[in-house]
Amino acid sequence: MSGITNTATLEEKGGTMSGRLVAIGGAEDKESDLEILRRVVSLAPEGNQEVAVIATASGIPDEIFPVYEEAFGRLGVERIHRMDVRSREDAREEQHIETVGQCGLIFFTGGDQLRLTNVLGGSPLLEAIRARHEKGAVVAGTSAGAAAMSATMIYNGQAADALRKGAVRMSSGLGFVDGIVIDSHFLERGRFTRLMEVGATNPEYIGVGLGEDAGVIFHPGGIMEAIGSGHVIIVDSREIISSNVAELSEGEPVALEHIIMHALISGHGFDVTQRRYISDMLLSEMTKGAV
Amino acid sequence: MSGITNTATLEEKGGTMSGRLVAIGGAEDKESDLEILRRVVSLAPEGNQEVAVIATASGIPDEIFPVYEEAFGRLGVERIHRMDVRSREDAREEQHIETVGQCGLIFFTGGDQLRLTNVLGGSPLLEAIRARHEKGAVVAGTSAGAAAMSATMIYNGQAADALRKGAVRMSSGLGFVDGIVIDSHFLERGRFTRLMEVGATNPEYIGVGLGEDAGVIFHPGGIMEAIGSGHVIIVDSREIISSNVAELSEGEPVALEHIIMHALISGHGFDVTQRRYISDMLLSEMTKGAV
Repeated sequence: MSGITNTATLEEKGGTMSGRLVAIGGAEDKESDLEILRRVVSLAPEGNQEVAVIATASGIPDEIFPVYEEAFGRLGVERIHRMDVRSREDAREEQHIETVGQCGLIFFTGGDQLRLTNVLGGSPLLEAIRARHEKGAVVAGTSAGAAAMSATMIYNGQAADALRKGAVRMSSGLGFVDGIVIDSHFLERGRFTRLMEVGATNPEYIGVGLGEDAGVIFHPGGIMEAIGSGHVIIVDSREIISSNVAELSEGEPVALEHIIMHALISGHGFDVTQRRYISDMLLSEMTKGAV
Repeated sequence: MSGITNTATLEEKGGTMSGRLVAIGGAEDKESDLEILRRVVSLAPEGNQEVAVIATASGIPDEIFPVYEEAFGRLGVERIHRMDVRSREDAREEQHIETVGQCGLIFFTGGDQLRLTNVLGGSPLLEAIRARHEKGAVVAGTSAGAAAMSATMIYNGQAADALRKGAVRMSSGLGFVDGIVIDSHFLERGRFTRLMEVGATNPEYIGVGLGEDAGVIFHPGGIMEAIGSGHVIIVDSREIISSNVAELSEGEPVALEHIIMHALISGHGFDVTQRRYISDMLLSEMTKGAV
């Protein structure tokens, strides 16, 4: 659909600016065309074909590692590091920190985002990841690994009950991106109510609902680009006209007047700063020019 | 929450104008406070305490009838008619037509809305229901019985796949209300995508997503009033700025720019004609004055 297969300029790839951030809604294709993972790999600094797969969120890392080894291997990645970081002690280990320091792509698997923040929050390993990201490495995450990327993250809340005060449980995320709240498996699990409640409590934050086999690349200048075969739903609450949320007790139903949504497909985008939908041709122009 | 327990004026109850229409999202409380059913019964013409329960949509009418008999009985309804209309032949039976002609409330159970339209569409029984409704009887329906009320109805479409062209299956409904498309079990089954696709194909129609134990009363003048413990989601597509839906092949993902939603709770409303959210105090004023 989109002409922008590889948007990073040579200057960017040289490593003087932050690498791209990619959030994926879960269940990305790992066996067929690998559209999303291929794109993620293409964003890594030129010449660096090392990937760190961090399975901290997962309860079944031994099942997950081989799947990503196979997928990244098919994409020509030369070295894939199994980062089996399960405790805060692991997150201080010098060897892990060294590994991260040599990778062009750091990839967070799915699982439980609270385990991810609980183990990595404030750790030397997270600091090393941030430093490496600032030097140009791509940081990508799927499912829980995507949800944890924002400064404030959702970690729980049944979608069917979500539009009731306090039903969506939030905490501090890893903070790779600010101004947004990310939710995953969004269409498949009908999570619209979760981002509606989040939007009611603080309309300043853009809700980004990632469908399965769908994701967003965060380009410079607050430009998000949708990738993959699924949908990305943008939930924009800034123009909410009225809501009862401040007057409710916990568990009472939230009323909301005027919340705006967009459904993005691959190649379409959204400008977080301007709060503006970007059609695909426009996006090609904008990301070409981005430095 | 709302002060309007019984809004029908005496003139209305006399029967010279159409009765109220009530659409319920399914799983309405039938055993505890009966909030929605109580309200439905209260809208019937004064002095008429006969209810016809039409279980055509259901595959298990013998299980459903006793539940509604018990519930309506608790609400003081004097006669409850089991309308076991399973075929188009049944829908021509003089006895059923007579029964409907003496009821103050005609209630459609849940089940399969396509069975409902297939059996009742173009039948003498449906004509009799319409005539009775015009004389002031309340027509109410839950789940499939609510979905079938609009002129165009949704009868199928997995929510997870819905935002793909053609995934939402539609057909002609019973046509009690025009200008809207009703969906049920809306929050519980995450059906936002279904009304988004419907909105993309024709932005003229307001999507009304009814949660469980939630419903809307259609008051005169295009005023909808939310009732029950759940949510009613309004999906307003008229201000869509762009969509690719007309250019897609079947199954391709639909992009949508700028769809507006509102979350209504009991006592809040929506003016379909003006496309305006109505807060509860305002609604009390408006329905008090409605004739």
